[in-house]
Amino acid sequence: MTPNASALLDRLAAIVGPTGLVTGEELRGRPASWTRPAEPCAALALVRPRDTAETGAVLTACAEAGAAIVPRGGATGLVDGILSAPDQITLSTERMTAIESLDPLSMTMVAGSGVTIEAVQNAAREAGLFFPLDLGARGSATVGGTISTNAGGLRVLRYGMMREMVLGLEAVLADGTVVSSMRPLIKNNTGLDLKQLFLGTEGTLGIVTRAVLRLRPEPAGYATALVACPGVDDGARVLRAAQSAFQGRVSSFEGLWPDFYRLMTKPGRATPPLGPDYPFYAIIEVECVAEETDRFLDLLDRLMGEGTVLDAALASSEEQRQGMWRIRDRVENMNADGIVRAFDVSVPLDRMDGYVRGALARMAAIPDCRVVVYGHIGDNNLHWNTTDLDGPGNAAIDAAIYEPLADLNGSVSAEHGIGLEKRGKLGLSRSAEEIATMRLVKRALDPDNRLNPGKIF
Amino acid sequence: MTPNASALLDRLAAIVGPTGLVTGEELRGRPASWTRPAEPCAALALVRPRDTAETGAVLTACAEAGAAIVPRGGATGLVDGILSAPDQITLSTERMTAIESLDPLSMTMVAGSGVTIEAVQNAAREAGLFFPLDLGARGSATVGGTISTNAGGLRVLRYGMMREMVLGLEAVLADGTVVSSMRPLIKNNTGLDLKQLFLGTEGTLGIVTRAVLRLRPEPAGYATALVACPGVDDGARVLRAAQSAFQGRVSSFEGLWPDFYRLMTKPGRATPPLGPDYPFYAIIEVECVAEETDRFLDLLDRLMGEGTVLDAALASSEEQRQGMWRIRDRVENMNADGIVRAFDVSVPLDRMDGYVRGALARMAAIPDCRVVVYGHIGDNNLHWNTTDLDGPGNAAIDAAIYEPLADLNGSVSAEHGIGLEKRGKLGLSRSAEEIATMRLVKRALDPDNRLNPGKIF
Repeated sequence: MTPNASALLDRLAAIVGPTGLVTGEELRGRPASWTRPAEPCAALALVRPRDTAETGAVLTACAEAGAAIVPRGGATGLVDGILSAPDQITLSTERMTAIESLDPLSMTMVAGSGVTIEAVQNAAREAGLFFPLDLGARGSATVGGTISTNAGGLRVLRYGMMREMVLGLEAVLADGTVVSSMRPLIKNNTGLDLKQLFLGTEGTLGIVTRAVLRLRPEPAGYATALVACPGVDDGARVLRAAQSAFQGRVSSFEGLWPDFYRLMTKPGRATPPLGPDYPFYAIIEVECVAEETDRFLDLLDRLMGEGTVLDAALASSEEQRQGMWRIRDRVENMNADGIVRAFDVSVPLDRMDGYVRGALARMAAIPDCRVVVYGHIGDNNLHWNTTDLDGPGNAAIDAAIYEPLADLNGSVSAEHGIGLEKRGKLGLSRSAEEIATMRLVKRALDPDNRLNPGKIF
Repeated sequence: MTPNASALLDRLAAIVGPTGLVTGEELRGRPASWTRPAEPCAALALVRPRDTAETGAVLTACAEAGAAIVPRGGATGLVDGILSAPDQITLSTERMTAIESLDPLSMTMVAGSGVTIEAVQNAAREAGLFFPLDLGARGSATVGGTISTNAGGLRVLRYGMMREMVLGLEAVLADGTVVSSMRPLIKNNTGLDLKQLFLGTEGTLGIVTRAVLRLRPEPAGYATALVACPGVDDGARVLRAAQSAFQGRVSSFEGLWPDFYRLMTKPGRATPPLGPDYPFYAIIEVECVAEETDRFLDLLDRLMGEGTVLDAALASSEEQRQGMWRIRDRVENMNADGIVRAFDVSVPLDRMDGYVRGALARMAAIPDCRVVVYGHIGDNNLHWNTTDLDGPGNAAIDAAIYEPLADLNGSVSAEHGIGLEKRGKLGLSRSAEEIATMRLVKRALDPDNRLNPGKIF
């Protein structure tokens, strides 16, 4: 360690206290991330500030030492957004875990950036309220991490992404400046909405330390069905009809292509409510009270009469509902079949069918390539999962999935972010002028490129 | 006119064609804005580009000539956001009025920035869809103007502000660079969400030329009631109960304080459905189908049983519903009584009652001051209207309304913006660090301060 590095660590320890700084063996005992469990966390130190003031002091110290900072939330991201180098400081939000307040009348909550999404959900539920963001990593993903990645998940169709759930936030800039925008207001037109700078920018413009979250009324109940359709466009028509009939209360619409459906309903896995040979399946879930179930059944009947739906199964109990969701959610079934590489892209709904057909045709020509596709298609979001082949095979898969997106006005990352993993793909869904404009903002807020350097671009 | 100015006008005329440039008498025949009908538009010229490419060329020409640009949409803003100086170029979007496409399945529309909100609403309706943004100026307010001001209006509670209705947009930066982010995607996590730079920043960071708008299913119907409550906090409890009972489908919740209610229901004005002596009134509207009316009545009954509601009137026809809305909407009734100065602020819901009581008490001590208060309280948004007194009286009114906001975590502008009018108040709802951060972004995108200079700060 250089004398400068040593002086910086002393200064950081003085700010956060001796237990706030993790170095040496203890640091190497931590994995680099959830996707790299065998790789130790590479950093000069991991620093754990307790609040915004300590975070500000840490960033000021790093600025004066010229050290780079890599923020770290629940470490369950999928795009290598938190990987750090041996000369960098990793800043973990793990001690900022206070739920500071919850106002049931205004339906708002103030939480530290290290609070997990599950803890937010639970606190809301205890107050008779609901925090709609939900994703598989809810037990580890944090408020700060989901803000920095603008997380999506299972209910975006109805409630939006994390962007729509944050009323205000507090962030620390690269030079240690604390920017506090913690107003619990729905309306506040007083110039640039500063929180947008930190939503989805993966810690490259500032470190989020606290947020004011918007809560919602708890849903009164659900009607859930699995439908089979003649094609993807019919599935889109089902979605459209349900949105009209239930005034935007469709909370999930998950498209399942046949290979995915068959894989997830193999013997010993989820029980298949419908036969395996339809061209397209969708799980549709509507928020409604029990007395509206008849209207939901009428809708499905009408769609079957029109031929938009070929067959349908309604979940008549919570157990049946959970059974349907197991078809969608048991990612481990894909892993067991060796289908382990995950992709997350967006395509406009009216282009989706052609895109999937084209990409499947290209991948059919790749030796040993197995692929399944499914996704939150109501949000434009497709997930591909494929086998992990040797270099050239994987490169051919990547090309089949990513290359068409530029012409289709799609996105190389619907909800996972860019991180290090998708940096090379950014140009497929952002123009040179867009990237240049992002760089202008980055340089304005972090002129020395010390906040999560190398991520996104 | 200087030789430089003359050369710039020649160049602009060559870009937009002779009818695209308005100068001299014709320019002076146009009013400065809707709020200043007698004041002529002060500018070197008004330029009317037909599309993004022409807008880019205009901004490049102005950049090379060092000329400032003031953008102009429907000119019905309320904060002097479009006032220009005699040496500046005013850029009007009035020729960018094409609705380029509408996709009923994806529920998206591509529109030029000069399209009025009414035209967007009508085109959506013709396709069996719904564009939720609505405000009194719908016939003149434009897509570009409502993006630049992040307009709100009557349905924010359910559908959000303009920010939530824009999926993508195209903007021209100060140097003429065209930044096109026209993807019709709900999910697109590829770094900074660039459209946020242009939403609510009043044309200070770029000129919006086109947008991809998100449409919604047409509401199936409404249940509408006027309720009287013991106080503001009871009103908030009514809102909260209705949001739970109707799963977030409360589309409007308008608080009316007694002086406002009495003024709007004077003889010859709207018919009062309830007596004039209750402490607080609210119009509540829920999106629902006709068969849900009984549930709405049950809710009102329950709230009356609890004492949260003292009396209630349900609109039993569309005519009665319109009658209730006339109590809220007929601004001309205030003007007729000389209550002409309009204020637009935000306050957290749990602080609202105390704030209004305090401000009313201060204004009661100002000689000849008459004041009424009402607003979209579910969005935290209060509108004050007051008499127009001589200088010291108006200054005392301003102080009574604005000064408490800083300590209450409120906002000096809920939905109107800052413009020139509220520049001096910005510091009451933005910290020095927030304003400094906004300035960093402004300098990065417009280093010579030529885009709508002097607005916001």
